[in-house]
Amino acid sequence: MHNYPNELLTLIAHLKKFPGVGSKTAERFAFHLLNWRDEELSALSEKIGELKKKVYPCSECGCIKGAGICSYCAPDLRDQSILCIVSSPKDVFALEETRAFKGLYHVIGALLSPLEGRTPDQMEIDVLKQRCVKYPLNEIIIALDSTLEGDATALFLKQELESMGYTTTRLAFGLPMGSSIDFVDFGTLEKALTGRQRF
Amino acid sequence: MHNYPNELLTLIAHLKKFPGVGSKTAERFAFHLLNWRDEELSALSEKIGELKKKVYPCSECGCIKGAGICSYCAPDLRDQSILCIVSSPKDVFALEETRAFKGLYHVIGALLSPLEGRTPDQMEIDVLKQRCVKYPLNEIIIALDSTLEGDATALFLKQELESMGYTTTRLAFGLPMGSSIDFVDFGTLEKALTGRQRF
Repeated sequence: MHNYPNELLTLIAHLKKFPGVGSKTAERFAFHLLNWRDEELSALSEKIGELKKKVYPCSECGCIKGAGICSYCAPDLRDQSILCIVSSPKDVFALEETRAFKGLYHVIGALLSPLEGRTPDQMEIDVLKQRCVKYPLNEIIIALDSTLEGDATALFLKQELESMGYTTTRLAFGLPMGSSIDFVDFGTLEKALTGRQRF
Repeated sequence: MHNYPNELLTLIAHLKKFPGVGSKTAERFAFHLLNWRDEELSALSEKIGELKKKVYPCSECGCIKGAGICSYCAPDLRDQSILCIVSSPKDVFALEETRAFKGLYHVIGALLSPLEGRTPDQMEIDVLKQRCVKYPLNEIIIALDSTLEGDATALFLKQELESMGYTTTRLAFGLPMGSSIDFVDFGTLEKALTGRQRF
């Protein structure tokens, strides 16, 4: 690390905590900030300082919300017979964008990952179960990443929820829209073939 | 853009101003910040808010400095017979790292770029000239990027300074350390060949 002024070094250390940002990028960000106007710097500083006071998790679904009631939990707006389990608040917004789902959400926060020490005990499965019995659910969609951790978590949730008598479904696997078959990997193509649907 | 809470949208807009950061990365940063501890957020917010009060340009050389006198301008520490012209404060720190230069620096701020509207009039060449005559200079090193803009600016500075009677030099071109010849581009190899030195 160069012999930068101390204040700059501390700022660089903070910026390095951003995901995917290493020393070089953090330095670049810090020097870029030096060129911002004073009011831009104050605005960013204020937004970061107030972030968690203005945006916080909904105590019901676990998604993030601003002031007022969580729009994904409002009983008059959402279909209470279907619940969609996702791993992070970001996924809720991505699914909402599709406009294909009007039910309830439940954010579980993190996927199972024995290597990183996230075991079923830490999953707050009881919170999920208590929430399920509050609604007249017909179906629970498990909408987790299509990764090793996502699959393990989905399997665990399926077992827990089916033992309570719920019907669980999961997102379809297949070709991404706009893809050509010879660019799709072997696993995806196999899933697309076995999951083929009547035309 | 997803239907995020307003506060989050504003924060994302600010983060998008970082160099090389687009919508997706800014969203990722913002969601990452939501997971930071309160004290980490306050610390980052404070550092950004105070940045320009604690780190500012040296009125003499144009490099950045913390509190106290600029260490690159201190007369008892630096060789006043040689001046090195760079385009940004970051370059000063990079050159200092080499420990191969003990003279004075002058940061010109931006390179000439007619396409972006930076013409010689905006270069504050008078400030540089006034600074040059203050010291008993034997040599002025023009240490600018090896790009179109850098070359144009170097040529302009060379003309201005040589008309005042100064000897100007520029950084050597050649093979980067550790590179193999067949991976080096044609232009660099040609410069390395024509600039060959006695072994």
